[in-house]
Amino acid sequence: MHDDVEKVDVPLDRVRRYLEPGPIVLVSSAWNGERNIMTLGWHTVMAFSPSLIGCVISSGNHSSELVRRSGTCVINLPTTALTDEVIGIGNSSGTGLDKFEHFGLTASPSTAVEVPRVEECHAHFECRLVDDSLVDRHGFFIWEVVAAQARMTPAYPETLHYTGDGVFMVAGEIIDRRSQFLPQML
Amino acid sequence: MHDDVEKVDVPLDRVRRYLEPGPIVLVSSAWNGERNIMTLGWHTVMAFSPSLIGCVISSGNHSSELVRRSGTCVINLPTTALTDEVIGIGNSSGTGLDKFEHFGLTASPSTAVEVPRVEECHAHFECRLVDDSLVDRHGFFIWEVVAAQARMTPAYPETLHYTGDGVFMVAGEIIDRRSQFLPQML
Repeated sequence: MHDDVEKVDVPLDRVRRYLEPGPIVLVSSAWNGERNIMTLGWHTVMAFSPSLIGCVISSGNHSSELVRRSGTCVINLPTTALTDEVIGIGNSSGTGLDKFEHFGLTASPSTAVEVPRVEECHAHFECRLVDDSLVDRHGFFIWEVVAAQARMTPAYPETLHYTGDGVFMVAGEIIDRRSQFLPQML
Repeated sequence: MHDDVEKVDVPLDRVRRYLEPGPIVLVSSAWNGERNIMTLGWHTVMAFSPSLIGCVISSGNHSSELVRRSGTCVINLPTTALTDEVIGIGNSSGTGLDKFEHFGLTASPSTAVEVPRVEECHAHFECRLVDDSLVDRHGFFIWEVVAAQARMTPAYPETLHYTGDGVFMVAGEIIDRRSQFLPQML
């Protein structure tokens, strides 16, 4: 599963390229000697520069405390090759369980935050919490992406898009309509 | 393009089924005799019940004023059959242009809000603004879906997921892993 395609830095204003399509992501977190991974589908791009991502992590998740306390996380982008792990992580709690070990995933150091990334993923977005004003009311965290890396191939990997009920849509096929866009809209 | 498959009500706690996968949507709005449609990719599910959707509409969009003033909108879900319209709407401003007329789209009455829906779309989510606390700072609107309708077929229509640069990913193929989920996680 872990392939050797090298990852390169992604310009921060290009993060939308990976997250705007709405894939399921794996959020890794760490605080005070604990670490965790959660499966997350509730996120949105909020700005290009600074690169802001909003996501909902309910206080019932073990990850919620780790990301609140540390003010950091890594948003990792899995492909369909990690479907079993995505489901397993989403169906288990990190309380008393090291999900990296349990699911055989590699915790690699990040470049800008003290949170391990999930190396088997296609891309990694290292985040710092910049707005927690809706955390209490809605579990809504606003992150600034401060470092990003991705594999350059495949250019459009198959990603998982969750519909509920155990069913994922798969995106991978692309439609290129660049010629129909106004230059300033690209 | 406009087909005759009847639309039925969708239970409000099932809205995630359509929006969590992260498709491009068409947001219709109306206020004070004006109406508009915008293409939007920056949205997230925020809660099942009440059914909450957050989205970013920058103040530079003509739609921003209409949705702020009326406190309502309709989130319409287009399929790949509407790719040209999605691009055309995203590349034009509603200032001085009626996008329903210009793009040959049908403005049908909604059931719970005074905003026309885009009939050619697969599904419609009628929304009332419930939290505008991050509108000034981030253009972030939190909506409660108060009525929802969708075509029953196809069960998983091909949807558009925007990556920037004029390139969309297409989701339509599904992976059903229901058997791998804990019952309480479905």
